Amino acid sequence: MTPSSPPGAAPLTPIETDALIVGAGPVGLFLVFELGLQDIRAHVVDALLHVGGQCAELYADKPIYDIPGVPVCTGHELVERLQQQIAPFSPTLHLGQELRSLARTADGRFDCETSTGTRFLARTVFVAGGVGSFQPKTLRVAGIERLAGRQLFYRVRDAAAFAGRHLVIAGGGDSAVDWALHFATDVAQRAASVTLLHRRDEFRAAPAQVRRLAELRAAGTLRVVIGQITGFETEGETLARLQLMTADGGSDTLALEHLLVFHGLSPRLGPIADWGLELEHKLVTVNPATFETSVPGVFAVGDICHYPGKRKLILCGFHEATLAAFAAVPYVDAERRVLLQYTTSSPQLHRLLGVTTPSPD
Amino acid sequence: MTPSSPPGAAPLTPIETDALIVGAGPVGLFLVFELGLQDIRAHVVDALLHVGGQCAELYADKPIYDIPGVPVCTGHELVERLQQQIAPFSPTLHLGQELRSLARTADGRFDCETSTGTRFLARTVFVAGGVGSFQPKTLRVAGIERLAGRQLFYRVRDAAAFAGRHLVIAGGGDSAVDWALHFATDVAQRAASVTLLHRRDEFRAAPAQVRRLAELRAAGTLRVVIGQITGFETEGETLARLQLMTADGGSDTLALEHLLVFHGLSPRLGPIADWGLELEHKLVTVNPATFETSVPGVFAVGDICHYPGKRKLILCGFHEATLAAFAAVPYVDAERRVLLQYTTSSPQLHRLLGVTTPSPD
Repeated sequence: MTPSSPPGAAPLTPIETDALIVGAGPVGLFLVFELGLQDIRAHVVDALLHVGGQCAELYADKPIYDIPGVPVCTGHELVERLQQQIAPFSPTLHLGQELRSLARTADGRFDCETSTGTRFLARTVFVAGGVGSFQPKTLRVAGIERLAGRQLFYRVRDAAAFAGRHLVIAGGGDSAVDWALHFATDVAQRAASVTLLHRRDEFRAAPAQVRRLAELRAAGTLRVVIGQITGFETEGETLARLQLMTADGGSDTLALEHLLVFHGLSPRLGPIADWGLELEHKLVTVNPATFETSVPGVFAVGDICHYPGKRKLILCGFHEATLAAFAAVPYVDAERRVLLQYTTSSPQLHRLLGVTTPSPD
Repeated sequence: MTPSSPPGAAPLTPIETDALIVGAGPVGLFLVFELGLQDIRAHVVDALLHVGGQCAELYADKPIYDIPGVPVCTGHELVERLQQQIAPFSPTLHLGQELRSLARTADGRFDCETSTGTRFLARTVFVAGGVGSFQPKTLRVAGIERLAGRQLFYRVRDAAAFAGRHLVIAGGGDSAVDWALHFATDVAQRAASVTLLHRRDEFRAAPAQVRRLAELRAAGTLRVVIGQITGFETEGETLARLQLMTADGGSDTLALEHLLVFHGLSPRLGPIADWGLELEHKLVTVNPATFETSVPGVFAVGDICHYPGKRKLILCGFHEATLAAFAAVPYVDAERRVLLQYTTSSPQLHRLLGVTTPSPD
């Protein structure tokens, strides 16, 4: 794939494109393929730093059984397969940035800008936003947000910064358990101490990781505390202790240097709500013949779209992306006739895919 | 998969089933899977002797590029992958038989019978009939059909019957070339002579087979004649010679014992037209929220169905099969609530799939 524009690199002139896809989940990725078959090249924006959306974020290592023709694969594998499939159409990815604004220009295109200042002039826009942009769920403890980025973290961007520190890791899922094991055992990045804090003594991580946690806990390599954060104490401007409600309803404190919170990701519809698209229960209403929204030239596919009978399944998103790509053609080239061709037999599709046509038709 | 009922085996009592699928192409096969996830078991009827429909019949060895998550596979491979995927739901296949009749019974079920006399009492029927049933294109030569099954054949059911005979094989595609090579070279089933008859000196078979044909032709192991059949001559009741129009417009004759014709398959909507389903241009009209036809309890999916925006693509058929399976639930169990569950996380779906749930939810 074409290298991403680096976050923060705002081009002086907007990028002109026939198609802008908002969301690099499985459906956004497959849309690159279907637009490619229509000879339409796309730019793709995603708030996450990697492609794959929910597949990568929520079930990267979990098996999926209902992708037709793929009896079983993990979320990660599905994303890899899709990346391989769309490679002939080399989309340009703009990751780690959220599409903020969408406004129609005088010539009928869409002027769009991301959170890092990348600007586009697009003939068509495809909202493949899944459940919205993923944001870590924040702590609901008054005043604690002012410590975010200094001693309170919701993501690990630079693991080395936590080596040799007294860490409290809050959460009971994969991320919390994986990072607790990492900082308790990693030779180069071992913490001074690791306390895994969770509201109940049960962990939803992969079974092998949960077993490893039990071993390290028994060996005293890390500590598990059952409780919930109710407040915090500082010394000067520095976080010194967490106040806890314990499992039996009592209270306790926990000294620390850094707090890492992994309470899951919460999707937020975000700026999409402000683009003038007709919504129904925070989903974008579409015409199921074209997957066009109430704004001509703007399409919505995948979990974020709504139409009668809609089921939030990846395989349905693939169908939606396909019909949307057909419907986009007149916006890109008003003269072109839209033909249904088959990848088994069409020399034109073979040329677009970069494969040789096996035998004359 | 559960062994097929043998053609011709008419059970005394009809087979009672929650779901009857008409068509074992890729969409009919995937429907077995989606019904399985809804805990509905299916019987499947197909006119062909094997599963796969057009995928197996028209492009078994041709690469397909637009199955989402499968960057490339042949029609044959896709069918194999789908068979593996549906294996947990062990559908019962009834092959080599066409569904002839469909009539509603007093209790609201459907009484259906196939061309070989298999009868079903089904709560729901899914027409996944593709372009209809495939029938070999017959010769347009007056009177020649009375030789069909004696000296004129459109399919090879018993290859041994042609060993040691003087054969004319008509056609220029895969089947004609493959059988010509087979009977020219097979140690056990070699013919006395093989003449491949085609209207032009160009063959649409796999490149390796076309090369092999050229070699055997050069070596005199088989003969290629360019021409078209215009009539035939008999001795008594026995076919003795074909009358041909040659490439230059002249005429010629060709002596033979057996004529094998492979002029392709032609789909026929067939009995489906008589079931009282609302049609539009020989396609079955459906509601795209449920893929239900005008007859409640009868659904249509894949190339045979029509709705606004319809594209005849396999991946769209997968979506259609999925929504149809959801919509079928109330017909099978009026009490059951239809829930959207995910194969990544649902213990109930894992039980149906016969896989172990990896971690508690």
